[in-house]
Amino acid sequence: GFAKLDHFRQGRTGFPEVVFGEGKTVHQIINIINSLMKTNRRVLATRIDELKAHQIQAILPMLTYHPVAKALTWVHSEEPEVLYDGYVAIVCAGTSDLPVGEEAAITAEAFGCKTERIYDVGVAGIHRLFHQLERIENASATVVIAGMEGALASVVGGLISNPIVAVPTSIGYGANFQGLSALLSMLNTCSPGISVVNIDNGFGAGYYAALINQK
Amino acid sequence: GFAKLDHFRQGRTGFPEVVFGEGKTVHQIINIINSLMKTNRRVLATRIDELKAHQIQAILPMLTYHPVAKALTWVHSEEPEVLYDGYVAIVCAGTSDLPVGEEAAITAEAFGCKTERIYDVGVAGIHRLFHQLERIENASATVVIAGMEGALASVVGGLISNPIVAVPTSIGYGANFQGLSALLSMLNTCSPGISVVNIDNGFGAGYYAALINQK
Amino acid sequence: GFAKLDHFRQGRTGFPEVVFGEGKTVHQIINIINSLMKTNRRVLATRIDELKAHQIQAILPMLTYHPVAKALTWVHSEEPEVLYDGYVAIVCAGTSDLPVGEEAAITAEAFGCKTERIYDVGVAGIHRLFHQLERIENASATVVIAGMEGALASVVGGLISNPIVAVPTSIGYGANFQGLSALLSMLNTCSPGISVVNIDNGFGAGYYAALINQK
Amino acid sequence: GFAKLDHFRQGRTGFPEVVFGEGKTVHQIINIINSLMKTNRRVLATRIDELKAHQIQAILPMLTYHPVAKALTWVHSEEPEVLYDGYVAIVCAGTSDLPVGEEAAITAEAFGCKTERIYDVGVAGIHRLFHQLERIENASATVVIAGMEGALASVVGGLISNPIVAVPTSIGYGANFQGLSALLSMLNTCSPGISVVNIDNGFGAGYYAALINQK
Amino acid sequence: GFAKLDHFRQGRTGFPEVVFGEGKTVHQIINIINSLMKTNRRVLATRIDELKAHQIQAILPMLTYHPVAKALTWVHSEEPEVLYDGYVAIVCAGTSDLPVGEEAAITAEAFGCKTERIYDVGVAGIHRLFHQLERIENASATVVIAGMEGALASVVGGLISNPIVAVPTSIGYGANFQGLSALLSMLNTCSPGISVVNIDNGFGAGYYAALINQK
Amino acid sequence: GFAKLDHFRQGRTGFPEVVFGEGKTVHQIINIINSLMKTNRRVLATRIDELKAHQIQAILPMLTYHPVAKALTWVHSEEPEVLYDGYVAIVCAGTSDLPVGEEAAITAEAFGCKTERIYDVGVAGIHRLFHQLERIENASATVVIAGMEGALASVVGGLISNPIVAVPTSIGYGANFQGLSALLSMLNTCSPGISVVNIDNGFGAGYYAALINQK
Amino acid sequence: GFAKLDHFRQGRTGFPEVVFGEGKTVHQIINIINSLMKTNRRVLATRIDELKAHQIQAILPMLTYHPVAKALTWVHSEEPEVLYDGYVAIVCAGTSDLPVGEEAAITAEAFGCKTERIYDVGVAGIHRLFHQLERIENASATVVIAGMEGALASVVGGLISNPIVAVPTSIGYGANFQGLSALLSMLNTCSPGISVVNIDNGFGAGYYAALINQK
Amino acid sequence: GFAKLDHFRQGRTGFPEVVFGEGKTVHQIINIINSLMKTNRRVLATRIDELKAHQIQAILPMLTYHPVAKALTWVHSEEPEVLYDGYVAIVCAGTSDLPVGEEAAITAEAFGCKTERIYDVGVAGIHRLFHQLERIENASATVVIAGMEGALASVVGGLISNPIVAVPTSIGYGANFQGLSALLSMLNTCSPGISVVNIDNGFGAGYYAALINQK
Ligand SMILES: Nc1ncnc2c1ncn2[C@@H]1O[C@H](COP(=O)(O)O)[C@@H](O)[C@H]1O
Ligand SMILES: Nc1ncnc2c1ncn2[C@@H]1O[C@H](COP(=O)(O)O)[C@@H](O)[C@H]1O
Ligand SMILES: Nc1ncnc2c1ncn2[C@@H]1O[C@H](COP(=O)(O)O)[C@@H](O)[C@H]1O
Ligand SMILES: Nc1ncnc2c1ncn2[C@@H]1O[C@H](COP(=O)(O)O)[C@@H](O)[C@H]1O
Ligand SMILES: [Mg+2]
Ligand SMILES: [Mg+2]
Ligand SMILES: [Mg+2]
Ligand SMILES: [Mg+2]
Ligand SMILES: [Mg+2]
Ligand SMILES: [Mg+2]
Ligand SMILES: [Mg+2]
Ligand SMILES: [Mg+2]
Repeated sequence: GFAKLDHFRQGRTGFPEVVFGEGKTVHQIINIINSLMKTNRRVLATRIDELKAHQIQAILPMLTYHPVAKALTWVHSEEPEVLYDGYVAIVCAGTSDLPVGEEAAITAEAFGCKTERIYDVGVAGIHRLFHQLERIENASATVVIAGMEGALASVVGGLISNPIVAVPTSIGYGANFQGLSALLSMLNTCSPGISVVNIDNGFGAGYYAALINQK
Repeated sequence: GFAKLDHFRQGRTGFPEVVFGEGKTVHQIINIINSLMKTNRRVLATRIDELKAHQIQAILPMLTYHPVAKALTWVHSEEPEVLYDGYVAIVCAGTSDLPVGEEAAITAEAFGCKTERIYDVGVAGIHRLFHQLERIENASATVVIAGMEGALASVVGGLISNPIVAVPTSIGYGANFQGLSALLSMLNTCSPGISVVNIDNGFGAGYYAALINQK
Repeated sequence: GFAKLDHFRQGRTGFPEVVFGEGKTVHQIINIINSLMKTNRRVLATRIDELKAHQIQAILPMLTYHPVAKALTWVHSEEPEVLYDGYVAIVCAGTSDLPVGEEAAITAEAFGCKTERIYDVGVAGIHRLFHQLERIENASATVVIAGMEGALASVVGGLISNPIVAVPTSIGYGANFQGLSALLSMLNTCSPGISVVNIDNGFGAGYYAALINQK
Repeated sequence: GFAKLDHFRQGRTGFPEVVFGEGKTVHQIINIINSLMKTNRRVLATRIDELKAHQIQAILPMLTYHPVAKALTWVHSEEPEVLYDGYVAIVCAGTSDLPVGEEAAITAEAFGCKTERIYDVGVAGIHRLFHQLERIENASATVVIAGMEGALASVVGGLISNPIVAVPTSIGYGANFQGLSALLSMLNTCSPGISVVNIDNGFGAGYYAALINQK
Repeated sequence: GFAKLDHFRQGRTGFPEVVFGEGKTVHQIINIINSLMKTNRRVLATRIDELKAHQIQAILPMLTYHPVAKALTWVHSEEPEVLYDGYVAIVCAGTSDLPVGEEAAITAEAFGCKTERIYDVGVAGIHRLFHQLERIENASATVVIAGMEGALASVVGGLISNPIVAVPTSIGYGANFQGLSALLSMLNTCSPGISVVNIDNGFGAGYYAALINQK
Repeated sequence: GFAKLDHFRQGRTGFPEVVFGEGKTVHQIINIINSLMKTNRRVLATRIDELKAHQIQAILPMLTYHPVAKALTWVHSEEPEVLYDGYVAIVCAGTSDLPVGEEAAITAEAFGCKTERIYDVGVAGIHRLFHQLERIENASATVVIAGMEGALASVVGGLISNPIVAVPTSIGYGANFQGLSALLSMLNTCSPGISVVNIDNGFGAGYYAALINQK
Repeated sequence: GFAKLDHFRQGRTGFPEVVFGEGKTVHQIINIINSLMKTNRRVLATRIDELKAHQIQAILPMLTYHPVAKALTWVHSEEPEVLYDGYVAIVCAGTSDLPVGEEAAITAEAFGCKTERIYDVGVAGIHRLFHQLERIENASATVVIAGMEGALASVVGGLISNPIVAVPTSIGYGANFQGLSALLSMLNTCSPGISVVNIDNGFGAGYYAALINQK
Repeated sequence: GFAKLDHFRQGRTGFPEVVFGEGKTVHQIINIINSLMKTNRRVLATRIDELKAHQIQAILPMLTYHPVAKALTWVHSEEPEVLYDGYVAIVCAGTSDLPVGEEAAITAEAFGCKTERIYDVGVAGIHRLFHQLERIENASATVVIAGMEGALASVVGGLISNPIVAVPTSIGYGANFQGLSALLSMLNTCSPGISVVNIDNGFGAGYYAALINQK
């Protein structure tokens, strides 16, 4: 009776299953990736720390590890790196936000999208952002990543016309409450054209921007 | 010196300025709409209650009022209603969520998009949703609106492959805390392909989905 | 004067005292279990990590350790494993929720109930749930365990007619706030027939479902 | 394709659909009740204030209004009032909690259960509770309703062996935070055999207790 | 024994006592202002609505009412309006924030400072701010007022070198939580040179900026 | 000028200064205790872990260490242990709450009060409490210590007529939020005659009860 | 069986039952007071607004109404006003806190205690407090009432040696969150000898101080 | 096009860039300081623990390390230590708050300001504060640092007339919620002339006070 439901799920297979590495053993991850490699031409595993990555690569040397993003990727040798026109802009406020930025960028690339990284353009030195506006405006979609007060999302949103996926990060201290400050900022933005994913969820933002770019 | 910034702003004029009616007087709204009608071919004003709407229409009878959405719209007689291919699906959990759903739908239409309304398909009677999956899957983007526990976003997200904009509503009581429950639900979704806007922000979701559909 | 109160307490002795191992020393736990074994034919101790368990089993080798549930159990050799007809369904969203699921299952079994485990049926791949509906529907009571946004409780609640005990887990990150997101979701469910216990309280849910099944 | 899902839903029809009156017009409620009366032998509508109730009864004089519970009920003349053996105990801390208590009681009765009301037995005068223990212990299930600090649930839970559904109410002020205090109390209870529904959700608790009693 | 404490208090008398009108009767306010006018050459009363103001002015016609700020002021005829060099810049994000902006401006002026109002320069149209940078930079101190996500404080803080007093306002809805969003934003700003006062506390910010300007 | 203030402070010297050991080095604590012993006949130091205590006792062997309370005390050889009539009852819900109970008891004793410890009488087995009511009722003041839902304070408050100081503890998990649940419970108690101190603040409660007993 | 429990309750009858007027009808209050007057020589009813009070006094003219405290009291003609030596000091920060201060004072007096009111001594003009220290120090117990940041409790606690009951009030705005700010302040006080009751709970504090004074 | 923005930034160069050491490697910090030393005559790096500091000083021996403040500073040999008249008062409640106090003091000094440290003057022993009032009053600006309930800011604010920057610290436990208690206290102060920075942000307060003193 549920064939129809399974059929809907098939519609998504252009986007491969992603492995969430947190809380999984090396052994489990190797098994899952192994079986994904049989039925997919692209594989992505996120939240994998350096030690685990090296143990996995010892068995599966064809995987590439991205240490800042803490992600493992693989693309079949007959599969092109890039599948779609256009690109996703990844805009990052500070150096502490880079791991989230890289998770977003590697995710979008794992799904066959080009990316442009525009890093270290937080509002404390806003002139750096202005020199990059054209690169951001010409993207299909923009991921904006910021911690502390997360004001960067509103500033970019007020200047740029493509859809923005904002990612609050847990960077900050005190009344930051592990990212709550940036999260509320982004949800209450006065600039239109901004939607939000969970705190530190670079994967979710990269995936979402890739969905838009893929159109 | 700031010409370049103004130039970036011009890039957005395909999307007209939108009037946020809350806290503005009838007089102020009439003035703003009047001046927008001189330079734009489409006008949208949101959060306008029935009484205000009638007073505004008395002066500006060419405006259309949408009572559930609490929005006023106008399209120039030489401007086509629909500007883009594809459509935005508006999926709504319960009847109490309808005003937010209609705000999203009217917004997307005001920007020249077609919409499909799929209402009253909350998870308490999930079979109703399943009969509508094809209409949702074929949209360019989907707006999912739900209050209470907001589970509908995750369910649709697990079945459908286009980008979803989730809108938590403030419908509920007790431990719902004015929409916090649905908001946290949607931010923590285990289904990929979902981003979130502010509680009750039908406008923001409709605008965002229209941005994606317009590509 | 308080004999009557003690008498009410006697009414409950079908259900043995349960040892909450967290914060107790190996020595204390051995002593308590030892004295429980004299007056009860079934013993259950929860929240006992692997190291402690082995030290306890060195002294009390008749105990069985359940490593995922982190529970120790014992049933007197003349006591039947199963005491009641019917069964409790234990429905679990993701692999990270398994320890809570097992705590619920082992608890229900310790009180003489049969259980059916239905694991890894989270809403991100909802079709897996649908293949298990009959097994869930035929239970006397259902325990639903989910972290992140906890939507699974509402989905099962909309499909099944026996009483559901929902357990939010602390699995997630960011705006999950250590299980608050799933907790609020479950309390605000739009499906009837669902009640909730504390975050990660697999024991409480298993005990409650066993109470219902025992009727 | 979804016939199977509809089939699962059929399994529940012993329990009729319930009308949630809040936010619905008199006209809408009359229409819904009218159509429910054609296919059901029992009808329940909750959250209906006195004024609305009288307007509805003017059209549908066969309905009974319960002013404290703010509920409308109807039982077909050929349908017995009581359908099941046993009874549900409704235990209420203070007089301000009565509307929630009555909502629970009327709901359980609407579904064919007998009830016993044990009111005004809050912990500030705990001896009143002790005189009622036998009536509570002999129920199939117990609903405990309390506001302020909600301690009554734990006290009853420590004395009684049937399953308890606890309902926190929003009665209180200051650090009560609209029922949060009683809600957290009940979720963190040190007595086993207690599960919790949303703040002020008398309906949910009555429904749940009826599900258990019906077994 | 406490003469010394009183002496410290005298040090402050350049700044007159301010009347907080909220919750005071017309009669009480008239009495307080009357007695302040005997010993001070400047008087300020805040949080006085239009109706109260007219009743007070009927008795004390020498007072000036500022309807947007909801403040009454009086300066003795022999007292100069302006007492200090330099000026305080009052920077306001949106029109809804104006009452707070005016409370700040009128307060600074009541203490003898000049002000420059720079209104409607929120980040959704950031180019408007850039045209005003020189006027802001040349102030002795700047008050920045913003609701919703409060990003304006960080943007101004990244561009301007004088001390900024940021005022979050309660303007917004949903996840704004009555100004919490802007408050957390401003406390977590990544721009140095910003301090914060309570939500909607225009008086506190105007007073503080006047203290700095007065140096 | 401030002699009078110092004079008020003298009024308190019946109660010696107490050392808060958390965050202080062994060296600092030894120095402070040394100088207190010159001017006081009783000394109390709290929040001192076992290791620190032994290092301090190596230098100051006349100190007594209370390992559960984590407190060091000293009474001059010519000073009587007990200074006041009456006693303070220390009522504790569970074994995990004992450290807080002992901190309260040792503090009250350090100030010359007798105490009665009534431990392990939580509401899950409420009959144990009833056997101790006389001992509690006859105290001058009662300290009630409980974690999880903190219901014990309300139950004791409903039965006993002397003033109760309630101490919420951080014992619990999930929706306990590090003691928030018990704290809110105790602040919202429906029993009169209860006041509250900070979570885990056994010292504050013991000190307060001693103040009352000393009268 | 529960005679012993009733006996404990008798121990408290020196303190009469108090009527909490909020949410009760005039009719109900008259009935309760009437019956209390038969068995008690003192009556207290709190939270009764002016209109209700006059309607009650029309039937029961022997009652005295205290409009600021919103309380009704009655003392039998043969009962002395004052029953105990010593007095309770009621210390109040601002004029807006007066209703809570008066509720505390009238409560303590209703239970036969003398009181001293020390009002309008908030920390913004701290010298006013210092002129009153002797009157506060000589009390048996002190009630300190403050809203906004609640600092007065800590200041009085640092100067005075009798037990202090602190009452946070809901006076304030913005980040005051309806009294949360003063509540947290008072719970975290660095001055010893302070315990806390619920926000705006003048009754609870007056009752508690009377319990201490009565010793 | 953005030259003007860069020009505004130049206006701030009297104040050098500050290095936030948290999360940066020794290597990165050495590189940044090295390049700052080429273009600045003063350097400040904050949040650098002892171990890192020694490794940095091994390469850059001209840096001075301040272990309590956890800051590194350098002033060019031809640059005067003090650049401005007046001084900043740093007022600290308890010894646990010292690291934040020193971060503020070292920051103000790094920017060429004189400072006066007034430490250990918390409200539990308020007479210590009164002996220091003249030194505080004569400052250009005052930084007040306090944890727990943060009452010190209001007390100083009620006595002193220069602008106060209040810093809540995370010192405390239980209902302190990592500094939330002191933060809310300071934001809700009833004393005028106080603004607030983030919890534990000594740097922000020292910088802000230096900005005021520099005028
Ligand atoms: N970094 C990440 N953050 C959030 N979700 C992720 C992340 N990486 C993978 N996922 C999701 O986790 C799912 C796989 O979870 P699992 O079955 O536990 O491996 C995938 O469908 C992804 O949607
Ligand atoms: N709008 C305002 N917001 C906050 N505080 C104010 C305001 N207006 C006056 N105040 C303060 O309130 C105090 C006077 O309070 P009151 O004695 O109640 O009139 C003055 O000393 C001011 O510091
Ligand atoms: N365990 C405790 N919890 C809270 N406060 C304490 C504790 N022990 C001592 N104190 C208080 O801390 C003050 C001493 O703090 P300190 O000067 O840091 O040693 C004393 O006056 C006591 O009031
Ligand atoms: N202790 C501190 N707390 C908060 N902000 C700081 C601190 N120290 C430096 N900063 C700020 O951090 C900025 C430098 O950050 P970064 O580029 O990450 O080194 C400077 O402009 C300062 O405004
Ligand atoms: Mg934009
Ligand atoms: Mg999807
Ligand atoms: Mg169901
Ligand atoms: Mg029980
Ligand atoms: Mg700046
Ligand atoms: Mg009592
Ligand atoms: Mg004291
Ligand atoms: Mg001041």
